[in-house]
Amino acid sequence: MVAASLKKNHVGKVVRFSVSIEEDLIRNFDALCRDRGWSNRSEAVRDAIRRQLVEQEWAAGEEVAGVITLLFDHHRPGLAERLTEIQHHALAAVVSTTHVHVDEHNCLEVIIVKGEAREIEHLAHEMIGLRGVKHGELTGTSTGTGIS
Amino acid sequence: MVAASLKKNHVGKVVRFSVSIEEDLIRNFDALCRDRGWSNRSEAVRDAIRRQLVEQEWAAGEEVAGVITLLFDHHRPGLAERLTEIQHHALAAVVSTTHVHVDEHNCLEVIIVKGEAREIEHLAHEMIGLRGVKHGELTGTSTGTGIS
Amino acid sequence: MVAASLKKNHVGKVVRFSVSIEEDLIRNFDALCRDRGWSNRSEAVRDAIRRQLVEQEWAAGEEVAGVITLLFDHHRPGLAERLTEIQHHALAAVVSTTHVHVDEHNCLEVIIVKGEAREIEHLAHEMIGLRGVKHGELTGTSTGTGIS
Amino acid sequence: MVAASLKKNHVGKVVRFSVSIEEDLIRNFDALCRDRGWSNRSEAVRDAIRRQLVEQEWAAGEEVAGVITLLFDHHRPGLAERLTEIQHHALAAVVSTTHVHVDEHNCLEVIIVKGEAREIEHLAHEMIGLRGVKHGELTGTSTGTGIS
Repeated sequence: MVAASLKKNHVGKVVRFSVSIEEDLIRNFDALCRDRGWSNRSEAVRDAIRRQLVEQEWAAGEEVAGVITLLFDHHRPGLAERLTEIQHHALAAVVSTTHVHVDEHNCLEVIIVKGEAREIEHLAHEMIGLRGVKHGELTGTSTGTGIS
Repeated sequence: MVAASLKKNHVGKVVRFSVSIEEDLIRNFDALCRDRGWSNRSEAVRDAIRRQLVEQEWAAGEEVAGVITLLFDHHRPGLAERLTEIQHHALAAVVSTTHVHVDEHNCLEVIIVKGEAREIEHLAHEMIGLRGVKHGELTGTSTGTGIS
Repeated sequence: MVAASLKKNHVGKVVRFSVSIEEDLIRNFDALCRDRGWSNRSEAVRDAIRRQLVEQEWAAGEEVAGVITLLFDHHRPGLAERLTEIQHHALAAVVSTTHVHVDEHNCLEVIIVKGEAREIEHLAHEMIGLRGVKHGELTGTSTGTGIS
Repeated sequence: MVAASLKKNHVGKVVRFSVSIEEDLIRNFDALCRDRGWSNRSEAVRDAIRRQLVEQEWAAGEEVAGVITLLFDHHRPGLAERLTEIQHHALAAVVSTTHVHVDEHNCLEVIIVKGEAREIEHLAHEMIGLRGVKHGELTGTSTGTGIS
């Protein structure tokens, strides 16, 4: 009973709105939904809406979550230590780090971070720019607060 | 009478579908619509749908339209001639070329093309790779056939 | 004589710097250069450098150039007038507009603009959000001042 | 001794090539390197080269590595089980999954995968399209084999 009411509270009231659309356009969209695996039109539309809100959170410099992906050569002297040190001194909070040994030489490190958008970008650039980091990407996502 | 029926034929029957969505999410989306200048929710949703269909047309290598933007130094010997020559021999059809003198040295050339996605990409890379072309971009759009 | 000295002045002194790189990496890069049509390694490297400087100009909100691509239905009542009106009142300067009749219903309009990055983005969003505009893109380029 | 020779073997012979570039352009690039934290020009150029090779690996459908980032509501009935099930049946190999509790309702799951580019894309779309997944992104990186 309590759980149910909590959940209802969180998810919020669900409302409906209607979209007018040309018949040809919706037919092509339905085909795309099947191809891409969206469970239904509503889910595809909500996904598109949330995607734009996440972009907006990053553009506005809000509190967001992000994932920093680093591919690096673990034989490079001092690199692993430097990456650890940077994470410890970061203004944006490092939530977790996952490390994968891709082969004898290549490591993939995936770092989940929370903080202000600009701080996360700074942290990502700092690590991606290090010698021995072969490829790096910052993926922006959300803490979820503004998109539910 | 004829015009009206033609137009109706083109625009196609307009249908409606409804989207169920959390109240908080739609409130944030309405704020984004105001910020970004969408006239209403339906227009924003249709825009998102068409954007995904255009990406799909390019991924599938269909007949599409594109815009090639080139910034170049018009003092570079032979460059303007080379750009013209490449456009004349392109498999993808060049529809129009607009040339703007940005300052004493820099020219901006904007080329509208129609053709298969892969041919347009090839044409764009060929021109962007030339010495003297300072910056180039290929922008993908659609012929409109599949997104109306 | 004068022309030559002017040109030398503009293009600026050409310097050289050297890049140390793993043999395998440069071999794969050479293959990519051939594929993508870059005339040589130097040109590919300069292109990559300029591309990053252009992104930086946009992020910093500097004076830039841009191209707004609009696909729209020219049967939509009042749309062409609205597009013209918006361009006339824009803070960012519209340099030129090219209009192409793609088929009986679809028009492609390509608008070259100069101005501050944020003003150009506002102008683009305003037009892309209009009902009847099926697809729109803003392509960022540079006035060339900072990347030569 | 053995380790040293192995390492030399892996990293490959380091060669040098020189880039001719306008003085103004390299000055602006040096400023960008400082801003973005690249340790030196060579590193910035190698980063740009590797970034393009990674894009090429994905476009060509080669064996790559990727990171799927999912933000979801862990109260949604059946969702966590469905995500687990999909990962177990995936053609692309799931290497690791990291789960973070962002707040009472929102979870962030970061999945490292290896496999053919198209298979990874399929897997990502399948999970991102599920009801209850609020935001999802696929980040492409490399196994490192082709970019060292």
